Parts: sequence; C-alpha cells; structure tokens
Amino acid sequence: MIKRVTIGFLGCGNVGSGVWRLLENFAGDIAHRAGLTFYVKKVLVRSLDKKRDIEFPPDVLTIEPEDVLEDPEIEMVVEFLGGEEPAYTHMLHALKNGKTVITANKVAFALHWHELQKAAKKSGAGLYYEAAVCAAIPIIHSLEESLQANRISKVLGIINGTTNYILSRMSRENADYETALKDAQRLGLAEPDPSSDVEGLDAAYKLSILASIAFHGRVPFEDVFVEGITKVTAEDIRCGEELGYTLKLLAIAKRDGLNVETRVHPTFIASDHPLANVNGSFNAVYLFGHACKEMMLLGRGAGDLPTASAIVGDLERAATTTKHRYPTFANELNPKIALKNIKDWKCPFYIRMLASDKPGVLRTIASAFADAGVSIAAVQQKGVQKDGRVTLVIITHTASEKAIRKALDEIPFDTAALVSMIRVEQENPVNESDELETL
Amino acid sequence: MIKRVTIGFLGCGNVGSGVWRLLENFAGDIAHRAGLTFYVKKVLVRSLDKKRDIEFPPDVLTIEPEDVLEDPEIEMVVEFLGGEEPAYTHMLHALKNGKTVITANKVAFALHWHELQKAAKKSGAGLYYEAAVCAAIPIIHSLEESLQANRISKVLGIINGTTNYILSRMSRENADYETALKDAQRLGLAEPDPSSDVEGLDAAYKLSILASIAFHGRVPFEDVFVEGITKVTAEDIRCGEELGYTLKLLAIAKRDGLNVETRVHPTFIASDHPLANVNGSFNAVYLFGHACKEMMLLGRGAGDLPTASAIVGDLERAATTTKHRYPTFANELNPKIALKNIKDWKCPFYIRMLASDKPGVLRTIASAFADAGVSIAAVQQKGVQKDGRVTLVIITHTASEKAIRKALDEIPFDTAALVSMIRVEQENPVNESDELETL
Repeated sequence: MIKRVTIGFLGCGNVGSGVWRLLENFAGDIAHRAGLTFYVKKVLVRSLDKKRDIEFPPDVLTIEPEDVLEDPEIEMVVEFLGGEEPAYTHMLHALKNGKTVITANKVAFALHWHELQKAAKKSGAGLYYEAAVCAAIPIIHSLEESLQANRISKVLGIINGTTNYILSRMSRENADYETALKDAQRLGLAEPDPSSDVEGLDAAYKLSILASIAFHGRVPFEDVFVEGITKVTAEDIRCGEELGYTLKLLAIAKRDGLNVETRVHPTFIASDHPLANVNGSFNAVYLFGHACKEMMLLGRGAGDLPTASAIVGDLERAATTTKHRYPTFANELNPKIALKNIKDWKCPFYIRMLASDKPGVLRTIASAFADAGVSIAAVQQKGVQKDGRVTLVIITHTASEKAIRKALDEIPFDTAALVSMIRVEQENPVNESDELETL
Repeated sequence: MIKRVTIGFLGCGNVGSGVWRLLENFAGDIAHRAGLTFYVKKVLVRSLDKKRDIEFPPDVLTIEPEDVLEDPEIEMVVEFLGGEEPAYTHMLHALKNGKTVITANKVAFALHWHELQKAAKKSGAGLYYEAAVCAAIPIIHSLEESLQANRISKVLGIINGTTNYILSRMSRENADYETALKDAQRLGLAEPDPSSDVEGLDAAYKLSILASIAFHGRVPFEDVFVEGITKVTAEDIRCGEELGYTLKLLAIAKRDGLNVETRVHPTFIASDHPLANVNGSFNAVYLFGHACKEMMLLGRGAGDLPTASAIVGDLERAATTTKHRYPTFANELNPKIALKNIKDWKCPFYIRMLASDKPGVLRTIASAFADAGVSIAAVQQKGVQKDGRVTLVIITHTASEKAIRKALDEIPFDTAALVSMIRVEQENPVNESDELETL
C-alpha cells in the first residue's frame, strides 16, 4: 500500500527544481522502497509569467503564500526562499498549521530555531534541516541519530565552500586573495557580494546549528566568534606551510563540561590532519565523540543537486517516522545547567613580524613573550627585506590572545612590527592503540 | 511517556560490554530525547563463572540461547557472537519469533542476508546492521536514508583497518610487510591468525554489503574478486609514491547500468585523492552519487566503543520507527533486470620489471605492449642492480588484465622479468564548476 504525501514548495529556484526532478525521477523507487509517493500540489513563486525549465502542471504555481500555507491537504512544506524573511514567517505559519517543514535555510533557521521548534512541538509537526548545513553531507542526521550515544567534545568544520576554494587557490598557486575571489565569482562559487561567505558569517550560522546539536545545548549565532579571510595573505599561507601547517577557515566548537567555545576564523592546522587535505569547494566536518572517536564527513556542501539530495532524504524521513523528534537543549530545559560560552579560549598562535636585523632583537622578543607567560614552540627567521629588516615567524604554545597581545605590546616598534597573527588548531596526535581502550 | 524496550544480548564480549555501559550511561539522555528506556533482560554467555568487568544483576546471565530467543517479553536481540555459526542460526531463530535483530556480524550477515531478511519480513521484525560495516561510521544508514535519491555509481573504501595500518607503516617507515604485521599484532590491531584481514576477506564481506545497498541489487560475497596484501613490498610502495600514487587495499564497487564490478585488491590511487590520506587503522568510504556528487565518510571502523556507538544508534532507530524497512534488491524482485557481475573490468596498471640494461630493450617492451593494444602512460627507469639489470616501472592507460598478460608474455625473459603488477584506480579530476550543473 502506497501512502500519498501531499506537499507544497515555498519558492522554486535551482534547488527547488532539483527537488522536483529528483522526486519525479525517483518516484518509482521511493514508492517501491518506502511505500510513499510525494504529490507536489502547490509551488509558491514570485511571478507566474517567468519562463521555467520545468513544465509544471496547471494550477500548481501560485503567487499566494496562503495557497501553500492554508491548504489543509498539504502535509509538508519545503522552503527554498533563503534569507531571513519572508522565509521565517512562512515557516512559522506552516508549523502552526501542523505542516511539517523541511528547509535548507541556515539563516532563518539559525536565527529563529527556538520559535520554529516551539511551534513545531505545539502542533506536532516535524522540522527537518539536514540541507541547511553542508547540503548533501549527512552530518545533522548522523549527530542526531547514529552518534547519540556519544559525548561529542569537538567539532571542527570546513563548512563554507567559497572560502575553502579561495584559500586552496591561494595555497596552490600562490595567488593573492583578490585574484582567487574573482575566479570564485567567475565560476559562480562566490556571490557578486561575497561578504557573507568571506566574512565568515555563513560558516557561523552553520556552526551555531552544528554545535547546538552536537552538545545538546543551544548555541546562539550571536555567541559564535567570527573573523573572515579578507586579510589573509599568500605570504602567510606559504610561511605556515613551511612549518607544516595548512590554512583553513575553520569552524571550531569545543565542549568541556558545561563550557563551550564556538569560533570561526582563519586557522592553521597540521598539514597531515584529514581536514588539511579538504580542498576546493569541498566541505568537511571532523568530530570527536567519546565512543565513536574521530570521525569526518566530507562532501559537497553546496550546489543545487547536493542540496536537493538532502531535502529528498528529509522528506522520506519525515514521511516514515512515527513521531517527529526535536533536539533537546539542556540550557532551555534547565537554566541552571546552561552551557557557558567561553570567550577567553586559548590556542597556539602563528605570529609573523618584521624585525630589525641586529644583535639582541631575538632576545628582546623572547623576553617579551616570556614575561607575558607565553611559551614559544618554534621560531623561523627568513630572508632580509629591502629595508634591511628580516621576517620572523613564531609559533607559540597554547596561550590566550590577551597574553599574546601583552607580549606584542612590550616589543618596541623599532625592534619588530607585527604583520599578522593567525590562530593554530593543535590536535593531539592519534595513538594507534587508542581504539583498544575500554570504557 | 517513556516506552520500555526489553532486549537480550547474544554474547557479551568487549563490544557487548561497551553497549551495556553506553546504555547505562546514556539511559537518562535516551529517555529524555527519544522517550525510550532499554531494559536488558537476558545476556547469553558461554560460562556463568567467568569473571567479568560488569556486575550483572542476578538472573541476567544465561547459558541457554532459548532464554533470549524464546522469551516473549524480549523484543530486540543484539548479536555479539561473531562468525557464521551459531550466530546465523540464533539470529534466524530470533527473527522468526518476531524479534528485531541488531548485529555487528559482517560474516553471518553477508553470507545469509537473504534468509535473514526473508525471515524478518515475514514476521515484521527489524534487521539492523550499521555496526557490521565500518563500526561507528554511519555509512549504511547514510546510503539507506540520506542518499536514497541518488544513483550511486561508485563506492571506494578503505574498510579494513588492519591492512591499512600495515600499509601505512610500510609507506611511512619503509618497513617490510612482516615487520608491520608483527607490530599490528602486538598492538592488537591484527589477530594472531591475520589471514581474514590480510587476504582481503574481511573487506570483501563488507564490500558485498555496501555494494548491495548502494546499487539496490544483491552482490553476493562470492562475486567479489579478492586479492590480499601479503605480496606487497615496500619497494613497490616507494616506486608508486615517486610517480604520485599511494598504495591502499581498496574495496571497489562500480555500477554502470546493470553492470556491476566488485573487487578488493592492493591499489595505487593518486596521492591527492582524499582516500590516499586515510592512514593508520582508520577506515573511510568514498562514493559518488549523481545528486550528492563526491562524498567520503571517515572514522574508526573497528574497536569496542566505536562498534557499540553504532549498535546503540541502531537500537534507538529500531525502537522509534513505525515500520521496519528492508533494502529492496532489483535482482531478487525481477530476475530479468539482474545486475551483471563484470569479471573482465579494466583499469590502468602499475608494472615493475627488471630489465637488461642494453640497447633495444625498451623498444622490445614497448612493442609488446603496443601489439597487445595496451597504451603506456609513463615509464621510469631506476638504478642499476648488482646483476647489471635496471628497474623499469611502467604505468599503463586503462587496459584489461588479459591484454597486460598478453603483452608480458611477449617479452623474452632475458629482456625483462616481471616483478610486480598492481592495479591503479584513476579518478577523473574534479572540475570545480561541476557542482554548478543542473539536472
């Protein structure tokens, strides 16, 4: 017996067209495997006159949101509008009417998760968002189902394909940021206004969702520290590589007890770390759970079909579940056990300076770091500049940014001037016998 | 309202103890998140007197399989026995009695999937096996749910940690096979009798399961071509690396229409491929689907806790589903559309020979390959041996093994002698604009 599920689309751009076509092409398979058939009754569009690749049956297209949101026959709504509004208002409307919502919209979802989930729970509707984070990569579902008997202590992600493409190009070809960005725009990998990607906001929205699910506690978008890649230079990428590091825009979430830190910034990571080899527009999420140990999921984190792939997966999931589930957030249930957002997290730092090439300079610099309590892991002096100064690259041991700033403030400008400072993510080396441990 | 699910264990070694403890430690979380509580009523063991780390409540341990298999209260049975028998008989018994079975047993499952699934379908019981392939890595569930709106054309896997550890050691330290194997045994990464791992059988069981699910058609274990790593030398690993390749024991499954090829053998793969950087005892599965595009899942494919992590995920999944689902296999439904197992698959080859260092030798070799219709992609001549012969490494373009053998047969022994022949997996380079394509 085939169960017919009536659905509506909010918007129908490239991803929406992809979902329409996947449902069309896989209708037989889905009916056969899951006993389901999806019937798209209404598709909300901005204009009925626009020429489209898909020939929709008569009366499917509409410009009235209510035709989707108020039709009692429509059980599930797939939202393709993107951006905060009107997507949020429409999703809330659908959920209040008991319609399950499937969305790929990280912005509206990250900003209004609480309200959306509250409405969903109240009406018993489902809320599915696999496609909102890293498109086809099944990271949300893996965290929510497969890995639930784990205490996840760390999530490291390359979750923005645009910036990863730019950094990969800069690394591979020693290209400068502007050139790499222009190429990304030409290829359609970056928007004409690239700020949401290159400033790290896109990654921060996704990290807020990932961290909340991984840690079972809501991490609001506002709590994510964000620094983009616009100031990254090919020179720093090369200096780091010589020391065995690869530069990535990493989204980092760590949990230690109730302390959580979430941050997105350019980060040096050891070149033999699995994330270091994730190049081009690929995305990847690396995590550590106390039972599963290290895990990484890599794939296409954007694109019409990869996103559509995740949405159809969610549609089937929603249609075959007994009872929709919602993540539970410790800090919403019991304010006493609220996660604490750590602002003064520590990490090793990469520091590049231009220093005078004269006796005693290294001693002055070393003293400044020592006085600030910062321990130095490696120093490398490089070629002499035209003005007679030398490039000095320092990798510190784990330290607070405050301590680093204090050390730098102590170094007289005529001794050495700071050029750049980049955070380093140091993973503990994997012990091969680790996996033999028992609980 | 908390739903209580009564379960039984068949066996309770290290993985079983891990599951017991995860259920104990996460009882509150699972009750809270999924509205479930798992009650382990009976645990089948070989001896009641054995000293155990876990203090089981009275009457939980039993040496009678019927206490688990015939207890009407027990709804789900988790099988930890390993090996074909008595695991298969007990699982079949449980399924016939309507009990859902969760297993980490790739051997019994790969060999008797058909019968187990038939029994499960008949009684309506569930059959879950995420832990049987790559332990914690959620590859089964991702293929069955998240990626179902995909035509998967390729699955490449490093799905045996023992052999990957050995090959990584050989590559990193130029160690020979015997030394690396001994170290793996010392670390507990290889069995005292390592044959199932090093001969590729373990990987072949898993590949038969993976390919069947990815291609929606049963690929019996017997149809998987298997060649182990016992003849691999550090010399070949080094020669390949100089040409930009890394040696892995790859499990390869490809589908083109109804033609399927499945094989496990030492394989050179480009050193910048994501799989080439999967080292030590890590497992990874790389795949290509028409919608999701390239994807790779990496993690711990063995170990007590990683396996237990997958089993608890399956327990919750089984307990929260409306209706258990079973993969559907085209070739079991309609013999006319049976998948065809291709035996004469083609690939590029790496060939190392010892050749006489005299004029005309390369011409003779080149002629032999040309006459057999094999095109050569690269030739490298290396240092002269004590006996005056030189090492010649040849990489061919895609060819059948038959053609390669034919070429080699034409080369007189005093011209050049074959030392080794290793298959190469050539991925098409990824075009960055690929992801812009629409359906």
